[in-house]
Amino acid sequence: MTTSSARTFVPEIFSETVQMSQTQMNQTTSDHASTFDALCQTFRDAAKLSTTADLLEWDERTGMPRGGAEYRAEQVAHLRGLVHTLQTAPVIEEQLASLADWDAASDPHSDIGATLKCLADDYRRQCKLPSDLVQRTASCCVRGQGQWDAARKADDYSMFQPVLDEMLALKRETGELLKTDDQTVYEALLDEFEPGAKAAALTKTFADLRTELVALISEIKESPRQVDTSLITQKFPIEAQRAFSHVLAEAIGFDFNRGRLDETSHPFCTTIGPSDCRILTRYEPNFLPTSIFGTLHEAGHGLYEQGMRDDWFGLPPGSYASLGIHESQSRMWENLVGRTLPFWEHFTPQIQTHFPSELGQATAAELHRCFNSVSPSLIRVEADEATYNLHIIVRFELEQALISGELSTDDLPVAWADAYEQVIGVRPPSAADGVLQDVHWSAGLIGYFPTYTLGNLAAAQLYDAAKHSLGDIDSMVREGNFAPLRNWLVENVHQIGRTRTADELVEQASGKPLSAEPLIQSLRTRYSQVYDLN
Amino acid sequence: MTTSSARTFVPEIFSETVQMSQTQMNQTTSDHASTFDALCQTFRDAAKLSTTADLLEWDERTGMPRGGAEYRAEQVAHLRGLVHTLQTAPVIEEQLASLADWDAASDPHSDIGATLKCLADDYRRQCKLPSDLVQRTASCCVRGQGQWDAARKADDYSMFQPVLDEMLALKRETGELLKTDDQTVYEALLDEFEPGAKAAALTKTFADLRTELVALISEIKESPRQVDTSLITQKFPIEAQRAFSHVLAEAIGFDFNRGRLDETSHPFCTTIGPSDCRILTRYEPNFLPTSIFGTLHEAGHGLYEQGMRDDWFGLPPGSYASLGIHESQSRMWENLVGRTLPFWEHFTPQIQTHFPSELGQATAAELHRCFNSVSPSLIRVEADEATYNLHIIVRFELEQALISGELSTDDLPVAWADAYEQVIGVRPPSAADGVLQDVHWSAGLIGYFPTYTLGNLAAAQLYDAAKHSLGDIDSMVREGNFAPLRNWLVENVHQIGRTRTADELVEQASGKPLSAEPLIQSLRTRYSQVYDLN
Repeated sequence: MTTSSARTFVPEIFSETVQMSQTQMNQTTSDHASTFDALCQTFRDAAKLSTTADLLEWDERTGMPRGGAEYRAEQVAHLRGLVHTLQTAPVIEEQLASLADWDAASDPHSDIGATLKCLADDYRRQCKLPSDLVQRTASCCVRGQGQWDAARKADDYSMFQPVLDEMLALKRETGELLKTDDQTVYEALLDEFEPGAKAAALTKTFADLRTELVALISEIKESPRQVDTSLITQKFPIEAQRAFSHVLAEAIGFDFNRGRLDETSHPFCTTIGPSDCRILTRYEPNFLPTSIFGTLHEAGHGLYEQGMRDDWFGLPPGSYASLGIHESQSRMWENLVGRTLPFWEHFTPQIQTHFPSELGQATAAELHRCFNSVSPSLIRVEADEATYNLHIIVRFELEQALISGELSTDDLPVAWADAYEQVIGVRPPSAADGVLQDVHWSAGLIGYFPTYTLGNLAAAQLYDAAKHSLGDIDSMVREGNFAPLRNWLVENVHQIGRTRTADELVEQASGKPLSAEPLIQSLRTRYSQVYDLN
Repeated sequence: MTTSSARTFVPEIFSETVQMSQTQMNQTTSDHASTFDALCQTFRDAAKLSTTADLLEWDERTGMPRGGAEYRAEQVAHLRGLVHTLQTAPVIEEQLASLADWDAASDPHSDIGATLKCLADDYRRQCKLPSDLVQRTASCCVRGQGQWDAARKADDYSMFQPVLDEMLALKRETGELLKTDDQTVYEALLDEFEPGAKAAALTKTFADLRTELVALISEIKESPRQVDTSLITQKFPIEAQRAFSHVLAEAIGFDFNRGRLDETSHPFCTTIGPSDCRILTRYEPNFLPTSIFGTLHEAGHGLYEQGMRDDWFGLPPGSYASLGIHESQSRMWENLVGRTLPFWEHFTPQIQTHFPSELGQATAAELHRCFNSVSPSLIRVEADEATYNLHIIVRFELEQALISGELSTDDLPVAWADAYEQVIGVRPPSAADGVLQDVHWSAGLIGYFPTYTLGNLAAAQLYDAAKHSLGDIDSMVREGNFAPLRNWLVENVHQIGRTRTADELVEQASGKPLSAEPLIQSLRTRYSQVYDLN
């Protein structure tokens, strides 16, 4: 795969169109072509700046000296402001208008058609936001993450509350500007991450899922065959965890020539260029799953980024379909592949080598059981698959109440603790283990959490479709042969980009509209095996 | 020290001026003040973008995945292009013109006066360069460094030659555009790094220095008391070298809350923000001085950056006077402090702790002798102080010939080897140890090398001045008390910024114009001690 070059801003497919039009001596198409080219160049330039801002943020969260925070906020805000200026240049509206009658764009799922449709949607959206608001939000994000990090370390919610108030005010302002007549302010924010998602529909789906999960968790609780996790709660040397994380990411196909793996307090994946994808994980000395499944999760995101079409980098055909679809890729590798018995049948010899004194005698079956133990817990990123979505439901409800003003930040820590007690059955003893556990709100990501559960739903449905197409994936995984699944995902998900919406993509790949059924089935099968349910 | 904030763009001194003018109800001064404010804001914005480009380059040279190089070049070029656009905006010319009669600017050494003078000079210079040339050069720099790195590793000059040709053509184009009637193309390039420097004058100074150095080296060669360096050419664990480098940088005052120390193949120092200065060093398993003196050198640069005035960040009073002055700061800590006996009297216990099996029995006197051994060698960055300037003289002559076209890149490797044989008495056996050893030409730094020798001259003269003012610096160094010297430098060099030219700064601090005498004296004293010269 080659990267795009500054001087090659005509995507391949488009060059063909240009050639065709020249052959046919069709002057209008040629005009259209050069207008389209100019339009794309603006967004390619914007991508250069926004990926640079992403590097500023990656650096801020990996190695920036403490003193650098204040100026870093200015740098990021300035760059995000420039991106916004580019993306809302009035010439874009003219270009879009003059391309409205272009034949090459008539199919909204073609590269050109989807590009014009998505850019028009994005443009209308972006134009509603004044540059000043975008810059103030970017600046608040950088300061917010610094203050969140400090507050979490000090276990002191009061250090975080002022910047959370500031962020909520900015997000309410944003939502008011973006919302259409049939949207709430919260839905307008949600729409930014999961285009077309409706809070009411989500509430219904999440309620169904909650009923099923509560039933499943109750069955698991009553099972006579409980899981002893002492094997994975020993002291594991960080250096060995680091090495094993690298092995796992590389084995499933993450390309280290085009990416890297680092450490941070709240794992994430970011893309600095078409061949520069960075994943970050976290190492807990006494809990091995944190690094293993954190790495598989982020590497899943990384595979999506590395699987996209480089020649369309920065444009809709080379972008992700939605955050829910992005999350489906991380969840698939983390859970549907990474927590299976065949996966551990393959990796047991390697984990034994990396942790000889801790796991030298461990069997695949033991590890598989440990990695699938269900136990209501406080921290979302460490939650088992059965309770995970309940963590999301709590956040989904709280952030709606925060945005509507129904809940004040004064009352948030107690509301959080109450919700955890009621929904998950555990009450956080501290803010660090409660409301301060996630970076999202401080990073301006309000309306983002629901995409995690949407991702779980899509992951299960896409995995079923892959199995249907590829046959016995379990055998392939047992042999460490991850290429067939990865290639299926490249073809059916990664290279689709934004030429399909999330719903369209899932339906095209699986033949069915997105539903909760595959996820429920998948969890029931897995836990029946581990907990001997009937 | 606090960092500047996006909304506080009126430097302290300037606020006072504004207040004064308001008290006096002087409307003209208030107009001037707001024009000056707007002018400064443009350059503060440019600094946000250029420091961001610096981070892109820092990342490229520390941890960027290999595949990221091509897109990285586009990102850097795009940002440098934006900076150039900002710095050459026609409004600047208008603002400068309308400030020409401002009383507050009448003293060219005041903050406001120097700001206007320097910005006017820079503006005239920048306007001569088309944006396209700036972008092409930036892109060539990024590719050039990648290809230089690969060529050096492969010891294959032919991998590097095409990009060197491209760079030379770009630099000739640049020099032709910049040069004034009394300058050669090479002098125009030199002027960018050392304003006002003349090739003819340098040639003369360098010739004098060469004569003295050749005599000194010959005396050293004939000395019956030669240095045995086996103590410092043992195998030194990299991890311990890393730790000791950190100790040294911190001890002399490099602030790790406002900076970091990393590893790279060609050490440098870069500033990402007023409180984010990054120094990089290199670890040789079998040659301890590389990391020790590399670190002291870069930390010296870092102290200069950290000692500047934050409230003028991105503007002349908060910038360095010239590259020669920058180099004087690194050379002072590396050589005039770091290679002295008192320095090693202080650090011997610590070096013994870090390398117990290698240096557990070493004495300060032994280390001091080892670190001052003179031996003509191939690699500039590892050269002893006596021969160092001869390495510069070779490059100074070759790069003038390359730019004038007198020497073609086909003949460069042989010309390099011949010059080394003639001037230094050693002939490189390979390109990696010869013409491929330095990053500079691939990074577009043609006309830069002479600043190293100018830095050595200024370092010796400024150190003499500090001694004159502070008294017995040796005793302070012996106690590990580096603050008096550092504070003297902050006051007499760092905080001067660009309110003085290099020559003015040296003369103001030392009471004399810059001359070669202090350096020659300093070298003669040091080596007389080590080699028992008379």
